[in-house]
Amino acid sequence: MQPEKYCRRPHSRGLISITLRKMKKSVLQRARADYQPKLPKALQGSVKVKVGEATESVANQKEIKDLFPHTYGMPVVEFEADENPARVEEPFNVGIILSGGQAPGGHNVVSGIFDGLKSLNKENRLYGFLMGPAGFINHQYMELTASIIKEYRNTGGFDIIGSGRTKLEKPEQFDEGLKILKELNIKALVIIGGDDSNTNAAVLAEYYKNIGADVQVIGVPKTIDGDLKNEWIETSFGFDTACKVYSEVIGNIQRDCNSAKKYYHFIKLMGRSASHIALECALETQPNICLISEEVQAKRMTLDNIVSYICYVVSERAKLGWNFGTVLVPEGLIEFIPSMKSLISELNDVIEEHNEQLSELDEVEKLEAIHSYLTPTNAELYKSLPKNIALQLSLDRDSHGNVQVSLIETESLLSEMVAKRLEEMAAEGEYSGKFNTQHHFFGYEGRCADPTNFDADYTYALGYNAAMLINAGLTGYMSSVRNLTEPSEKWIAGGIPITMMMNMERRKGEMKPVIQKALVNLNGRPYLKFASMRETLALNTLYQYPGPIQYFGPSEICDRPSMTLLLEHGKEI
Amino acid sequence: MQPEKYCRRPHSRGLISITLRKMKKSVLQRARADYQPKLPKALQGSVKVKVGEATESVANQKEIKDLFPHTYGMPVVEFEADENPARVEEPFNVGIILSGGQAPGGHNVVSGIFDGLKSLNKENRLYGFLMGPAGFINHQYMELTASIIKEYRNTGGFDIIGSGRTKLEKPEQFDEGLKILKELNIKALVIIGGDDSNTNAAVLAEYYKNIGADVQVIGVPKTIDGDLKNEWIETSFGFDTACKVYSEVIGNIQRDCNSAKKYYHFIKLMGRSASHIALECALETQPNICLISEEVQAKRMTLDNIVSYICYVVSERAKLGWNFGTVLVPEGLIEFIPSMKSLISELNDVIEEHNEQLSELDEVEKLEAIHSYLTPTNAELYKSLPKNIALQLSLDRDSHGNVQVSLIETESLLSEMVAKRLEEMAAEGEYSGKFNTQHHFFGYEGRCADPTNFDADYTYALGYNAAMLINAGLTGYMSSVRNLTEPSEKWIAGGIPITMMMNMERRKGEMKPVIQKALVNLNGRPYLKFASMRETLALNTLYQYPGPIQYFGPSEICDRPSMTLLLEHGKEI
Repeated sequence: MQPEKYCRRPHSRGLISITLRKMKKSVLQRARADYQPKLPKALQGSVKVKVGEATESVANQKEIKDLFPHTYGMPVVEFEADENPARVEEPFNVGIILSGGQAPGGHNVVSGIFDGLKSLNKENRLYGFLMGPAGFINHQYMELTASIIKEYRNTGGFDIIGSGRTKLEKPEQFDEGLKILKELNIKALVIIGGDDSNTNAAVLAEYYKNIGADVQVIGVPKTIDGDLKNEWIETSFGFDTACKVYSEVIGNIQRDCNSAKKYYHFIKLMGRSASHIALECALETQPNICLISEEVQAKRMTLDNIVSYICYVVSERAKLGWNFGTVLVPEGLIEFIPSMKSLISELNDVIEEHNEQLSELDEVEKLEAIHSYLTPTNAELYKSLPKNIALQLSLDRDSHGNVQVSLIETESLLSEMVAKRLEEMAAEGEYSGKFNTQHHFFGYEGRCADPTNFDADYTYALGYNAAMLINAGLTGYMSSVRNLTEPSEKWIAGGIPITMMMNMERRKGEMKPVIQKALVNLNGRPYLKFASMRETLALNTLYQYPGPIQYFGPSEICDRPSMTLLLEHGKEI
Repeated sequence: MQPEKYCRRPHSRGLISITLRKMKKSVLQRARADYQPKLPKALQGSVKVKVGEATESVANQKEIKDLFPHTYGMPVVEFEADENPARVEEPFNVGIILSGGQAPGGHNVVSGIFDGLKSLNKENRLYGFLMGPAGFINHQYMELTASIIKEYRNTGGFDIIGSGRTKLEKPEQFDEGLKILKELNIKALVIIGGDDSNTNAAVLAEYYKNIGADVQVIGVPKTIDGDLKNEWIETSFGFDTACKVYSEVIGNIQRDCNSAKKYYHFIKLMGRSASHIALECALETQPNICLISEEVQAKRMTLDNIVSYICYVVSERAKLGWNFGTVLVPEGLIEFIPSMKSLISELNDVIEEHNEQLSELDEVEKLEAIHSYLTPTNAELYKSLPKNIALQLSLDRDSHGNVQVSLIETESLLSEMVAKRLEEMAAEGEYSGKFNTQHHFFGYEGRCADPTNFDADYTYALGYNAAMLINAGLTGYMSSVRNLTEPSEKWIAGGIPITMMMNMERRKGEMKPVIQKALVNLNGRPYLKFASMRETLALNTLYQYPGPIQYFGPSEICDRPSMTLLLEHGKEI
């Protein structure tokens, strides 16, 4: 135990206990603690493994196979109830890492693993590495006992052991981590994370197998962004809860919008690399406009096209006497606009090249100088941006010297450009109306919410299932629980080799094996459903108000999966 | 009916019906529609009036009496069950106005009035004036029938008839409104609004009585800010729900904060003229810091004092290894800092005087010029502000030429000044830690939420009770439902003369009769409870996570009143 490193003071372990003891639970938390997550039928007693066919990666089969000689091509497995359990299991220890951003249900993955391990053998032990992969590399950990687990069942957040964004990808890190695994006699490591973390889990599994370390590695699919999914991973956990929290407050804002009838609310939502969250919230709340980054990219839309579309809706609504509305904007939109991508890329080069000169200029001079260095198309676009956005693009650089696209207030960018265009339209007699705006950005509000029943059940099953995968001696597998729009009894539990989800992609100039990201499918039912309603939603006021997440009411309210999942499974919403 | 004015097109009435027909309800809305709000025992059957003692205004009795000769000094009334109802009531018509910002429960006030009226006589009719007082003055209205009311029971928002901020205060407006009241044979007008709207209701009641118009006026106390309360009005409706929505998302942010352990979240909350919302949310969520405007004013704290306090907490937490935390900031803080108030006042004058010259300068020159015109103390404070805040204070003026304090991003102002100070402290070796920030502002997210059971019951009772006050022939009264921390059966229903809540205050240079605003009482239990925990909350991590509003679970979760109300009634939380 080296807890002092965790909090960087001598008695931090003591502190943690004090915190636990003192933190008073809300009445809802106390009632919610008693919720027993539902398990698939197959996991309710002893299980046996049904081995399926060998697998291939989704693309670049040769390259992936060469990179993962020991863990490529393994079969999909499924668990079945074992009516005649053969033997008492030997006790073993397991370690877990929470990697990356928080997602609702993380604590139930942990409690699911814990209960799964204890169901196999009461002597099994669970260790949590602190503050993400860093805790694994630096040997900071704590044992997760029944009394600690009890405090966190069905709660949001990753605060049970903390999370972190250290990338676990170098052999030195693997070797360093192996020392503590051996010291604690840990048989398997569970990594709970998004696509990158699970890619790294696969690399680690291959590495340990290659050196004969005798440590299994299992991944659990987490990300509220919803971009880690495929036939076997129907959804990543946390997406359901986060979208329901965002939809609750979007619904409230829409009620306000429709009561006061005087504002356009521009609402930015999490989702840098895919627009699943915006799409799900649009299906839940029926706003007047929802932009979908993948569509913008596919249709090669320009910023001007997007502004024109919003202006069209605003001016048509004004003709009906409605000077109010709602616009959902995915966080990553800017990077999906091909012309903006090109501008940002050239800006990176220009500012790098002329850095010294630029640093001596004041803001106005700087904007002019940068403008003069850009190629004509980019220069024109740059000039069309509101000044504060152009400045953001020109000043704030990350540690690699790149523009920090995530800091750009896309919601303000759009509303300012729309306001300007509407003024021009008004001058030409094409628009008469009022355009007042409010801005919102929802991210942190949903990432640590208490999980919905769906996420509470799903994560608990994923964790419990992970314990079974470990017991089956598997490595390089991801915990998979499927058939999720059916009652949880009928959910299918098993595992898939992580390598089967991989392809080769360019990352920082190098080809790397990575889990293929699931973007919004423009031929998929969720998008098509939204697209079919879009015009009607734009020119009417058909807001839906989903209200807050409910835990105690009728099942159709409390257990309902996401609209996205229902549609993807061929159901109606 | 002149609905065309409402939507400014010929067929708007049709449009409203289409919207109603088409708008699909969420599953929760459908289940929630069946909720039957609970009524006080006294209102469950026929009622009779118990007349209390004559009243006095809270201050300036002579002035108020002179201004309200016909409606001053009336008695408090209370309703009791009438075992032997004497007579069948004659049918009558009632009009309602929703005034000002939305608050959860407004629709239940309307349905309570409707049900109350129908319980008296099935022939009674209810008319809603559209988009606030403007609809009354301009004769825009609709009849509220059973089928319309049904659509809105237990829902948030004011969209049933819309709301607006037109001030109803001039005799010409009263006369214009009287025409439509007479045309529709309306016996009484119910005004649902905050302190200003209820002040105007009292003025209107006095006016109609004086001219013998034979129209009663009844007020209903609404404001999520919580600043309209006293012995008889224990809370204004909407406060409970709005605070619970804010507390849900603050709790979620705190979980994130405590999981990632890398940000200070500065969270601004609604409440310009009082800090009740921030205080209630602090009691609900136990953040590390919550600023209370009334305390800042009472202790004559400077901006520098506030920044120092936050820096003290941040640096002490850093010593414990904690570079994260949460800070709640009431929206109106700036205006409660005496030195800022003085600066803003001088800025108004300076910019007015030198407007022409200033308008020709660029931003930097303008800041310098303004600085040179200020008196030394104000100049120093002005110089200490972050540049963007100084610009906001210097550029944006409202229609009266005043600084728009509400546009100032107080949460950014504080975090920027704290960051700067921490840098200085670090340079002097007094602080070593990381200070990364996130900002949030919650307002629109809670104003139109579906009401909690508490607000649903309370507003329904207020509305039902208003119908009884009308039937009792009263005018210039406010609907009062008390004893709110007891089960709703035991709530006490009645009315109080609005004049008894009044005193004289200076408004735009003139002394006016107004309802006394209830600020946070620094000797009251809610504040004292928070103050007693403050140091502990600052230097520990004792967040509470209230979770989402629940409608279907155990009563201690679903029916719990606000912490503020519980404490004010001598209960423990």
